[in-house]
Amino acid sequence: MENHRPLILITNDDSISAPGIMHLARCVSSMGDVVVVAPEHPHSGQSAAITVGAPLRIKERPCDEEGIRLFTVNGTPVDCVKLAIHTIVPRKPDFVFSGINHGSNSGVNVTYSGTMGSVLEGCIEGIPSVGFSLLHHSMKADFTLSTAFVAAIAHDVIAHGLPAGVCLNVNIPAKVIPEGIKVCRAARGYWTDEYQRYLDPQGVPFYWLQGHFVNQEPEATDTDEYWLSCRYVSVVPVKCDQTAHDAIKALADRLDSTTGEA
Amino acid sequence: MENHRPLILITNDDSISAPGIMHLARCVSSMGDVVVVAPEHPHSGQSAAITVGAPLRIKERPCDEEGIRLFTVNGTPVDCVKLAIHTIVPRKPDFVFSGINHGSNSGVNVTYSGTMGSVLEGCIEGIPSVGFSLLHHSMKADFTLSTAFVAAIAHDVIAHGLPAGVCLNVNIPAKVIPEGIKVCRAARGYWTDEYQRYLDPQGVPFYWLQGHFVNQEPEATDTDEYWLSCRYVSVVPVKCDQTAHDAIKALADRLDSTTGEA
Repeated sequence: MENHRPLILITNDDSISAPGIMHLARCVSSMGDVVVVAPEHPHSGQSAAITVGAPLRIKERPCDEEGIRLFTVNGTPVDCVKLAIHTIVPRKPDFVFSGINHGSNSGVNVTYSGTMGSVLEGCIEGIPSVGFSLLHHSMKADFTLSTAFVAAIAHDVIAHGLPAGVCLNVNIPAKVIPEGIKVCRAARGYWTDEYQRYLDPQGVPFYWLQGHFVNQEPEATDTDEYWLSCRYVSVVPVKCDQTAHDAIKALADRLDSTTGEA
Repeated sequence: MENHRPLILITNDDSISAPGIMHLARCVSSMGDVVVVAPEHPHSGQSAAITVGAPLRIKERPCDEEGIRLFTVNGTPVDCVKLAIHTIVPRKPDFVFSGINHGSNSGVNVTYSGTMGSVLEGCIEGIPSVGFSLLHHSMKADFTLSTAFVAAIAHDVIAHGLPAGVCLNVNIPAKVIPEGIKVCRAARGYWTDEYQRYLDPQGVPFYWLQGHFVNQEPEATDTDEYWLSCRYVSVVPVKCDQTAHDAIKALADRLDSTTGEA
């Protein structure tokens, strides 16, 4: 039996220039062969967007870290995963790790997150995949306190894999040594007061996204928002199948008899 | 009691110029007050992407259809829903309908679809929301055979609502009168052979997304792919909560004891 090291594909949505991605690469570089394929430019909030109808370019960058190769793609996080698998890496990656994101992807943010978009893409491809995010937006964020936890989760996933169709959304409190890890569910919530209104020099209005997250379950003690507030690393298992299986029967009773001849 | 007509927000990802969106608006214009807020330019494959760090503009367009108002936003489908709710419509919409998309959003396409991104946004906001897609990419696609089914599903959702946290992904076979409606689950699958490679005039390679969908469950008779192949309209209930609740316990047994001091 060939004793090969696992092939770890690393990506993010903050771009190759964001410090979080090299921190992640260093956290796992002893665990396998690491190939970093990241967007050339920031793609926060790009969800699972793909580039359709436009050409993509791949560029290799020099890397002074042993055992790590670096590439950029002029596209989205999902483009990076797709193009990496199709063209860049020599065989299908064994793991996809994304991040470390500069900013939270807890709660409903999983829907908008480019970090988690790339993780879902790995999951759809059947690859155990994990997104890591630090609750600090700054490009100067200190990732060192997260190192042991990122390494422990990566090590566990490399050792044990993940259930089919399930990936992980890991969020890490900033500026503290985390108390531990809690596997939990995403808090229900939404964003509100979302846009600031401005007038341009011609007096024409324009709008800029801002807003704040409303946790609709502030009393719940089994959500990622709760455990992050307790200074724990939250680990939410996320399904790539979005079908609401429980809802099929009642809806079928209502709709399957519709003929379109009403 | 005030007997007000429901407020129906309509959007899409193919842009205000795509014929499918006005077809959808006409299908439901007798059922409520219709406000169309659509991307200025096409945003296929934009998933639930949001515009962060850049300004958005709203423009009203004249509309010669009675009872329908038209607006464009220079952003994504989710931007359209967010900005519509925040700024354009006089009160929270009662329903969000997106489409009719020019092309399929069945199976795994729900993940990449801008149509379904906007529908998930409505769902996150607590609004019963439905995405409609016709299995025909052409801007000259004939939507007339879909009319009765689109109207029937919209009418049902307006009459009965949807379960909390659940939206609908409706796909409609093209060029046939559908046999009926089937509520079902999304087929598992993925895209393969995804990029065509070219050389530019300088001999530098670039890549263009293509590929084809691989249905991993070709034998299954309860999936959207199956029922679409039987010329039925497929209706997949989709959850906005992506947590894999079933996976929490086993993962917690593995990870919750990790201290980060390994």
